[in-house]
Amino acid sequence: MAKPDKNAPSRPVARLPKGLRDIGADELRQTQAMIETIRAVYERYGFEPLETPAFEYTDALGKFLPDQDRPNEGVFSFLDVAPEARDSKDREQWLSLRYDLTAPLARYVAENFQDLPKPFRRYATGSVFRNEKPGPGRFRQFTQFDADTVGAESVAADAEMCMLAADTMEALGFARGQYVIKVNNRKVLDGLREAVSLQGREHDARWLIVMRALDKFDRLGLDGVTALLGAGRKDESGDFTKGAELDTAAIAAVTAIFAATGGIDEKLAQLGERLKASAVGQDGLAELRTIWSLVSAAGYGDGRIAIDPSVVRGLEYYTGPVFEAELLIHAADDKGNPVRFGSVGGGGRYDDLVARFTGQKVPATGFSIGVSRLQAALNLIGRASKPAPGPVVVTVMDKDRIADYQRMVQALREAGIRAELYLGNPKKFGRQLEYADKRGAPVAVIQGTNEREAGEVILKDLIEGARAAQAITDNKEWKATRPAQVSVPEEKLVEAVRDILARHG
Amino acid sequence: MAKPDKNAPSRPVARLPKGLRDIGADELRQTQAMIETIRAVYERYGFEPLETPAFEYTDALGKFLPDQDRPNEGVFSFLDVAPEARDSKDREQWLSLRYDLTAPLARYVAENFQDLPKPFRRYATGSVFRNEKPGPGRFRQFTQFDADTVGAESVAADAEMCMLAADTMEALGFARGQYVIKVNNRKVLDGLREAVSLQGREHDARWLIVMRALDKFDRLGLDGVTALLGAGRKDESGDFTKGAELDTAAIAAVTAIFAATGGIDEKLAQLGERLKASAVGQDGLAELRTIWSLVSAAGYGDGRIAIDPSVVRGLEYYTGPVFEAELLIHAADDKGNPVRFGSVGGGGRYDDLVARFTGQKVPATGFSIGVSRLQAALNLIGRASKPAPGPVVVTVMDKDRIADYQRMVQALREAGIRAELYLGNPKKFGRQLEYADKRGAPVAVIQGTNEREAGEVILKDLIEGARAAQAITDNKEWKATRPAQVSVPEEKLVEAVRDILARHG
Repeated sequence: MAKPDKNAPSRPVARLPKGLRDIGADELRQTQAMIETIRAVYERYGFEPLETPAFEYTDALGKFLPDQDRPNEGVFSFLDVAPEARDSKDREQWLSLRYDLTAPLARYVAENFQDLPKPFRRYATGSVFRNEKPGPGRFRQFTQFDADTVGAESVAADAEMCMLAADTMEALGFARGQYVIKVNNRKVLDGLREAVSLQGREHDARWLIVMRALDKFDRLGLDGVTALLGAGRKDESGDFTKGAELDTAAIAAVTAIFAATGGIDEKLAQLGERLKASAVGQDGLAELRTIWSLVSAAGYGDGRIAIDPSVVRGLEYYTGPVFEAELLIHAADDKGNPVRFGSVGGGGRYDDLVARFTGQKVPATGFSIGVSRLQAALNLIGRASKPAPGPVVVTVMDKDRIADYQRMVQALREAGIRAELYLGNPKKFGRQLEYADKRGAPVAVIQGTNEREAGEVILKDLIEGARAAQAITDNKEWKATRPAQVSVPEEKLVEAVRDILARHG
Repeated sequence: MAKPDKNAPSRPVARLPKGLRDIGADELRQTQAMIETIRAVYERYGFEPLETPAFEYTDALGKFLPDQDRPNEGVFSFLDVAPEARDSKDREQWLSLRYDLTAPLARYVAENFQDLPKPFRRYATGSVFRNEKPGPGRFRQFTQFDADTVGAESVAADAEMCMLAADTMEALGFARGQYVIKVNNRKVLDGLREAVSLQGREHDARWLIVMRALDKFDRLGLDGVTALLGAGRKDESGDFTKGAELDTAAIAAVTAIFAATGGIDEKLAQLGERLKASAVGQDGLAELRTIWSLVSAAGYGDGRIAIDPSVVRGLEYYTGPVFEAELLIHAADDKGNPVRFGSVGGGGRYDDLVARFTGQKVPATGFSIGVSRLQAALNLIGRASKPAPGPVVVTVMDKDRIADYQRMVQALREAGIRAELYLGNPKKFGRQLEYADKRGAPVAVIQGTNEREAGEVILKDLIEGARAAQAITDNKEWKATRPAQVSVPEEKLVEAVRDILARHG
């Protein structure tokens, strides 16, 4: 194991770790606006905020990530050494960065069970971390926004999660028809497991292969999934993935979830036929019928929420209803290529997660939004918030008069206007205007000796100026007209700046 | 080295890692309000938001934490294994959780230098992590809120940081006189270092002991600091800390920073005498005079900002002016004990941090707020935001009519009122009212068979009810009058709930 090298060259390379990213002003402001919108919906639903730390004891998080074949994959872990600990077993403990917000919630509920209102309804937002191979658009730190109801057995809680998800999508700016909240039930999948005689712990691994295969329907289609359920599948690169080795009848049985046709009631009836012999399957279908009747009664049966037996969800801790928020918009990227968004959030019921700690079953259900994916989608449909204008820049013509320029800045700020003094080297005045441009400043304020003696300031309207520059091709004409530039008495500075800002909305 | 034990008992203990904490709804809402207030001030000053990841390559962060005697102390580090990396040196790399927001900023600026406006002004807020021994009120994850100007050599940038700090304190609710922004200059301390002949790398360690001793003046007083500058000091527990072993004259020279008296100009003059022979010391004093003239011209010399030569600041990367936001309020804790807040934020100039990467000097200065400490202070002076009321709780009298109750909830939410359906087991009605109480619900909505048949709902005003319950001692009287409970036609539900909420402000 490599240790940090003490003899490393003294000048480190400035580079981001792989799979991480810096987020600039425009994107961050959008994210903040989104988070406030989501928060407002969750608050209206009566959820309360909770923040748990970025890391937990490794054993408290457990391992429920999808597609992790090796132990220690998926999470970032480190050893916590506490030489001062009295108890020797506390001196070295493994900690892991959280990979979602649900596992820490289960720890919190188990630790504070007696003191919490039941049901306990909380929302949380923050970074989660996945120790995965990074890829395009796939980062190792990203933001989730979750709501969960813990201690509610009733599927009314699941129905509420779906309505919450739909309301959130619309509050963010997606129109009806641009998204759907799809609902399925793990118990239906468990019923299929019985139907193909794979129940029992000894078949866990094989069933997991089946679930992963079914989860790839959107990407691989029925042929790909069928291959993965059978002998296996060779992908475009020639890599072979071993399949679940089901026989033809079993493959037909599990792919029934894609085959059901007609309206939701009809689909449920067809699956009911298939699952006649399975108590758990029937139970799952009954729960789906209840959810459907509740969301329909509330008006969400208009396409906002739909029952879809093909939804799987990757995480292993789900025990009942599962949900997926899917975008239906067809968008194109910068190069005109079609972009498939697919899932931008999801969740489900996880009745065993608190019991991991306490041994006592505590029913729970939740919904989680992938904030960055949703933001990318909002940008593509043009519904993300627009970049904010830069600050008014007060330039420095005379470096001995910094205090005077600073006072102008102060006056603007006190009037609630974003403003700053140019703090770079003031020698080259052109640099100051370049800076103002680069900052997206709407106005530059200038006061040289002549202006000061006349008790005036010059205001350069940089937005209007940029427009005029496009229209004027003749440099002489430019110098003669000096468009978008006005002199005003110094005491009218704030008023005049405000007028220009108002003009540009 | 202990590995995660695969044979550990299958039921983990639900516990927070040491030195970390969960943050509940009331505190979080306050923090959010604070962060929005700080953000508004920083935005008005023209700073732009930036977010860097929670961890960085260990070598990129460097080691600048105060009071860390052993390597690998202070930061949480873990090995990143990337078996897919082509270059063997990329297969194993050390990563560390950020311990502040400044070191990642230096990495960001060095990596993106060409594309940034210069000066580059950014703000950032987020969690930082310290691998320290936890103590009361001392956590291993906490929130900072920073503003920095990178690429500005002028001390006008430092003066602006101090004004930003003062404006932020007042925006948060501290009155003039309840805080002060104290300013010193590391160059003045460097001048003292020359005066006691400790310049040169071979004396770095000893000078560090001197700096740490000076930094403890607030806690230990002049006697304690003098002991630490000399032979050493035994604390109350009997532990002995070895001193810097300065002689009496040298001790007098460095403690001159506490001895200066009179107004700020006089103090600077007295130090000027002491530092006559030191070019760097004179330079530092000249910078302090310029800062003082700029903040005085802007009106902040009224006690909001003060020059104080005794400010040290722990972090090792400072090279010029240093600032500290100190609370002057005298408060008492729950038990009536006086609470000394001291520093709630600070910062300074760090001209060499970007040069660590590029070799090219990039002047920079910044200010950082410790959000939790400031929040504790706001709570003690009663200026923190008040807890939000809970949601209206619609109870379930008839579990077959969930869809109807859900529709009432929906109507309230659509009117912008926080509301929820009781999602626990509805069998025991008393539990539902207990739940509403525990959630701080202002109103409970009830509709049994009688009410439904009459087309009515019962609204229980729980705030008024709690008040009435205190006034009424007789159970019979209670039952006869049923205070704070009204029946309204079902179609007036939203209007009637809104009236009750309005009554309680």
